[in-house]
Amino acid sequence: MKSIGVFDSGVGGLTVVKELIRQLPNENIVYFGDTARVPYGIKSPETVIRFSIENILFLLKQDVKLICVACNTASSFALPVIKNYFRAPIIGVITPGVREAVYASQNKRIGVIGTKGTIKSRTYEIEIKQLDPKAKVVTASCPLFVPFVEEGWLSGEVVLNVARDYLKPLKAAGVDTVILGCTHYPLLKPVIQQILGKDVTLIDSAKQVACEVKKILVSEDLLNRGKGGNNSFYVSDNPEWFSGLAQRFLGRQLKNVRKVNNV
Amino acid sequence: MKSIGVFDSGVGGLTVVKELIRQLPNENIVYFGDTARVPYGIKSPETVIRFSIENILFLLKQDVKLICVACNTASSFALPVIKNYFRAPIIGVITPGVREAVYASQNKRIGVIGTKGTIKSRTYEIEIKQLDPKAKVVTASCPLFVPFVEEGWLSGEVVLNVARDYLKPLKAAGVDTVILGCTHYPLLKPVIQQILGKDVTLIDSAKQVACEVKKILVSEDLLNRGKGGNNSFYVSDNPEWFSGLAQRFLGRQLKNVRKVNNV
Repeated sequence: MKSIGVFDSGVGGLTVVKELIRQLPNENIVYFGDTARVPYGIKSPETVIRFSIENILFLLKQDVKLICVACNTASSFALPVIKNYFRAPIIGVITPGVREAVYASQNKRIGVIGTKGTIKSRTYEIEIKQLDPKAKVVTASCPLFVPFVEEGWLSGEVVLNVARDYLKPLKAAGVDTVILGCTHYPLLKPVIQQILGKDVTLIDSAKQVACEVKKILVSEDLLNRGKGGNNSFYVSDNPEWFSGLAQRFLGRQLKNVRKVNNV
Repeated sequence: MKSIGVFDSGVGGLTVVKELIRQLPNENIVYFGDTARVPYGIKSPETVIRFSIENILFLLKQDVKLICVACNTASSFALPVIKNYFRAPIIGVITPGVREAVYASQNKRIGVIGTKGTIKSRTYEIEIKQLDPKAKVVTASCPLFVPFVEEGWLSGEVVLNVARDYLKPLKAAGVDTVILGCTHYPLLKPVIQQILGKDVTLIDSAKQVACEVKKILVSEDLLNRGKGGNNSFYVSDNPEWFSGLAQRFLGRQLKNVRKVNNV
């Protein structure tokens, strides 16, 4: 019984796994977190593409039927290239978020926040404009958000001050919708919402990504008809660190996280 | 004419290069920054050891006569292992800092700050106790300091608040000397000094490391007698990012940073 393969640079992709489990409880999931080389957000396109290919080759060895790139940086840089390399369908996290944001925005001013890599790639901007050429897109990279989340600084003055600084251009532009363009950011939702105000819609792509995966499994007749629901978690380093953070992202503890060498 | 080889997980080791250039202006230096896999501070001993060996093999190919591990995490985890593997002398950043701190402290209460990996390894604690069994050692990991430095947050309320939080146990213990156990931390000296007070001595090991290198080159008759002073800089990713940060660490701009694959 084939599985859904999911990879991320580290733990962030577990927010996508959480939604996959909710929407597709009978599917088996194999997750790979590249914790030996985390983070991807500061690295170059060539390097992120190389790492992504290595991660996909590892997942293919685990007999997966579909691959979900649950990392915005890897989706931005690598997806256009790797989509053509492999036979299995590959889903990124950008397009589902873009679709949802364009649908949600009333004033057609859309904000996007992400890592330096994601923002620099301009992938979100380009995809939003393709869907709605009239949309105004304002972007901001928030490089300290990932360390904040991983260190458990999810509220308080420090985080608020940094967030206020990062989100200034979005506030100034009067956006009514903001894409959380990094799988870590949903954990900072309360802070981001407090600064942008309660009328701004925050788009967390995990839910849309899971919908997209479901749609493809249905259309390609790949849905699991038996009783599945087994999940395996692999990392390239530090299984304890990963297990410790899993609670924060997945909402439950993880046992049996296995360390493997993916290169 | 053989060179001094220096490696670090990223840019931090340039603080050591700066001192090497000052104290040994006729030596050639080859630097390698493992920017494709930075940071090391959150990674496991086995992984840091594997990365360190790969970095040393790269430096040996560049014909180096001595290797300086300009990264506290790699020095803590890898040095005891790799010292026995290679013929060239290998210098870490821990012992020189420890020696200086034990010498500087009057009340024999010594603080150590570093990455999670460095603090967890207890290397500083063990080495201080070996040199002075009566010394009291208080340690604290400061995981947000590296992202702060790399993002250029070197002062202001945000950094002060986080630093105040991290340094609380050191203040409470009444340390009179603190080892900056990470090559990024010297850039936060003003903030750290402000919180600990001006009577606390901050030990930046770069100076001592360069002294140690000089001593070994002299005793092993390896000093460069000709006119040298050529420096080469290699990284495993993002040469532009590295060049941009170099100014902050080295005090001057870097051209011709070359990207290589060290694995």
